[in-house]
Amino acid sequence: MADSPNCDLKSLSPLQLFERVTEQGEKVRALKAGKAPKDEIDAAVRMLLSLKLSYKTATGQDYQAGLPPKDLVLINNGTAKEEDEDLVDPWNVQTSNAKGVDYDKLIVRFGSSKIDTDLINRIERATGKRPHHFLRRGIFFSHRDMDQILDAYENKKSFYLYTGRGPSSQAMHVGHLIPFLFTKWLQEVFDVPLVIQLTDDEKYLWKDMTIEKAYEYAKENAKDIIACGFDVNKTFIFSDLDYLGTSSGFYKNIVRVQKHVTFNQVKGIFGFTDSDCIGKISFPAIQAAPSFSSSFPQIFNGKENIQCLIPCAIDQDPYFRMTRDVAPRIGQPKPALLHSVFFPALQGAQTKMSASDPNSSIFLTDTPKQIKTKINKHAFSGGRDTIEEHRKYGGNCDVDVSIMYLTFFLEDDARLEQLKQAYTSGELLTGELKKVLIETMQPLIAAHQERRKQVTDEVVKQFMTPRKLAFEF
Amino acid sequence: MADSPNCDLKSLSPLQLFERVTEQGEKVRALKAGKAPKDEIDAAVRMLLSLKLSYKTATGQDYQAGLPPKDLVLINNGTAKEEDEDLVDPWNVQTSNAKGVDYDKLIVRFGSSKIDTDLINRIERATGKRPHHFLRRGIFFSHRDMDQILDAYENKKSFYLYTGRGPSSQAMHVGHLIPFLFTKWLQEVFDVPLVIQLTDDEKYLWKDMTIEKAYEYAKENAKDIIACGFDVNKTFIFSDLDYLGTSSGFYKNIVRVQKHVTFNQVKGIFGFTDSDCIGKISFPAIQAAPSFSSSFPQIFNGKENIQCLIPCAIDQDPYFRMTRDVAPRIGQPKPALLHSVFFPALQGAQTKMSASDPNSSIFLTDTPKQIKTKINKHAFSGGRDTIEEHRKYGGNCDVDVSIMYLTFFLEDDARLEQLKQAYTSGELLTGELKKVLIETMQPLIAAHQERRKQVTDEVVKQFMTPRKLAFEF
Repeated sequence: MADSPNCDLKSLSPLQLFERVTEQGEKVRALKAGKAPKDEIDAAVRMLLSLKLSYKTATGQDYQAGLPPKDLVLINNGTAKEEDEDLVDPWNVQTSNAKGVDYDKLIVRFGSSKIDTDLINRIERATGKRPHHFLRRGIFFSHRDMDQILDAYENKKSFYLYTGRGPSSQAMHVGHLIPFLFTKWLQEVFDVPLVIQLTDDEKYLWKDMTIEKAYEYAKENAKDIIACGFDVNKTFIFSDLDYLGTSSGFYKNIVRVQKHVTFNQVKGIFGFTDSDCIGKISFPAIQAAPSFSSSFPQIFNGKENIQCLIPCAIDQDPYFRMTRDVAPRIGQPKPALLHSVFFPALQGAQTKMSASDPNSSIFLTDTPKQIKTKINKHAFSGGRDTIEEHRKYGGNCDVDVSIMYLTFFLEDDARLEQLKQAYTSGELLTGELKKVLIETMQPLIAAHQERRKQVTDEVVKQFMTPRKLAFEF
Repeated sequence: MADSPNCDLKSLSPLQLFERVTEQGEKVRALKAGKAPKDEIDAAVRMLLSLKLSYKTATGQDYQAGLPPKDLVLINNGTAKEEDEDLVDPWNVQTSNAKGVDYDKLIVRFGSSKIDTDLINRIERATGKRPHHFLRRGIFFSHRDMDQILDAYENKKSFYLYTGRGPSSQAMHVGHLIPFLFTKWLQEVFDVPLVIQLTDDEKYLWKDMTIEKAYEYAKENAKDIIACGFDVNKTFIFSDLDYLGTSSGFYKNIVRVQKHVTFNQVKGIFGFTDSDCIGKISFPAIQAAPSFSSSFPQIFNGKENIQCLIPCAIDQDPYFRMTRDVAPRIGQPKPALLHSVFFPALQGAQTKMSASDPNSSIFLTDTPKQIKTKINKHAFSGGRDTIEEHRKYGGNCDVDVSIMYLTFFLEDDARLEQLKQAYTSGELLTGELKKVLIETMQPLIAAHQERRKQVTDEVVKQFMTPRKLAFEF
């Protein structure tokens, strides 16, 4: 990091560093809350990342809000080297690297396992189906206990899928589709029940939004999810605000989790402070509870021990690390996980696509013209400054957003490989590459819009009604 | 307080005193958790009360756990005098005074209003019924906004009653009946709907108890409550674990309250710490939510603005101070309250009757013989050491537990007055007075047991089914 402030930080004690990080974190939050200019926020976030790095270098541990470094052993003995640290939690994704977050490092930090060729091959053997390109291309890159799911599956023991979405606005962008597209594939190849949580209560708690609005967004978002092609006989979609009032099984699991997690723990995991409302503090239990089959007595016939598999973006992992910690203490199996990378913003992989910044996102409601304009205007390019230089030295696929998006959405492996080679060699210009992306995204989104039109309120109601699914337990 | 430790505390700063109170509070909790000998716990509690008093003398404010005295104006200018402070919160009632808690002081501390003769006369005029002896004798002694309830009632605007119980065990004692007996009277004279909350989730969170056990206790306790004579057409009894899964109106109000209360606030009000589980931290919202009529759409036809009146023992007031603070911010009317004194332990009014100490309690399941033995053996006497002295100087009604219990349960005013006079004059001996109490309690409890036998599981189910009551809204 070029403008590292570390020079004057070396003399500070771990506790002083801890306080500097905390202050800077508050500054970032204040800037965001006050809708400060983007440059100013970005600069503050860079400083925060740098301070966190200094803290880690001095203490050998990640900064955890609210947990001062009193019991840490100092490892700043010359062997630890300074390195960039990515910021990844359920509310922030930020890195200083244009290639995006370093996912290999994240696996080590989070203590999960890499999805390697062996595991992908095993999934292919178990299902008899070619692995989804999200698996083949490392978009789902990390897991917890996926081998146990396969062990059980090979022994004819069923499991169920659980994923979700926080309905923060009516507008969903293409990045939001990733977990749903992959979950749909998993459901088809394994033929298992699926539950999808819409955390409208979370959005009410975190945002300046009424309960009624949050619930309305949940139902609107359900339409986009259903438009991915889920089978109503195998899928239950629920809003927390709604389902909590229809299932005492769900509330019982929430309160079980709430008994086994302290404020100290959620402070460490999620960075809550004493000024946070008690709703936020207890919310993690509500995202945890659908990991246990007894939250859905109508689907699982009251059975408590059905294993759960959660496909989600890696930023949701803190919720499920907490859940896996609690599970054995309340006599439940730990949920398994499949983690995806983030879907990058148009401006580059330093941060993820965010619906709150319209220029960073391609929305599911965008017209072909809007898609074309956004890609041409904002998609960060790995190309050279002039055509001559580009022809001579070639483009950089590692930082080029068009290549990244095509990796997500262009299913044809050979075509993708050919585009990458042509761009790297300089044969393919940035404008030509963007044209390929535009022509990939336009029909994809138009088809989604067409399917979404078919999803009536009546269909939403069917998906969201608690009922038995087409499986026996 | 004779063994006051204040002498060496005068030199301490408010912050140092704050830390001493916090430490002593933790010591008391540890002793209780470790089931230390009663003497040791009592001594530690006395020290705690004394430290809190010193803190208040130095700062002019009540000690609040987690809120150090950084912004307090010191009023230790010689005008504040040292005085005993009673300990009253939802989990503890303790005083050093044999006459019991100083309720006039508590009214000042809590900022509630005294139920005076004017208010009692107004209730009589409004209902056309003679006030219950709990009102006439100061057993319900404090209120918030009862005049507003009467204003509305006189203008033909309805309200509803809300009370509750934490089902910590199968065994209820006679003290537990007080709020229910009074609530039944209120319901009869005002003819309004009543909701009764059984906080089985709270008991699961606080005690070493399964969810199933807590729910079982809730249903058992419902039988004793129903046996007080409630009308099934006008009364809805609910277990949180059960009802949360049947009403999204209830959960929506819970999450509304949870959004408007911070951890700092519940820390100040209830003394929670960072080591408490997130279930305890968010629980106060669950006790708050039934104060809002939209938690019961089936009863109030979805109406949001029906005023609520809560009869309860004064130790539950912290929950409803919090509720009243939140109410206007979520667009709901503040609940009104009627507060009762505590029902004293057999051993004396320094603490309230507790089901966890069998010798302190007369249970609703006790036989006539058990009642007789407990009163004769344990009921604290205000009599003299010898018959000669008693005849000469008379007994002390202010500390005599038999007189206190008769004030709760002997409805005949003239008879009660006569007994008090005879005991004060020395004409009536302690043994004779206890005989009157035994003969009052035995038939009362036998009749309760007889009514309870009639309460079948089917009847409990009727009371606990969400439904419309015999009122139009």
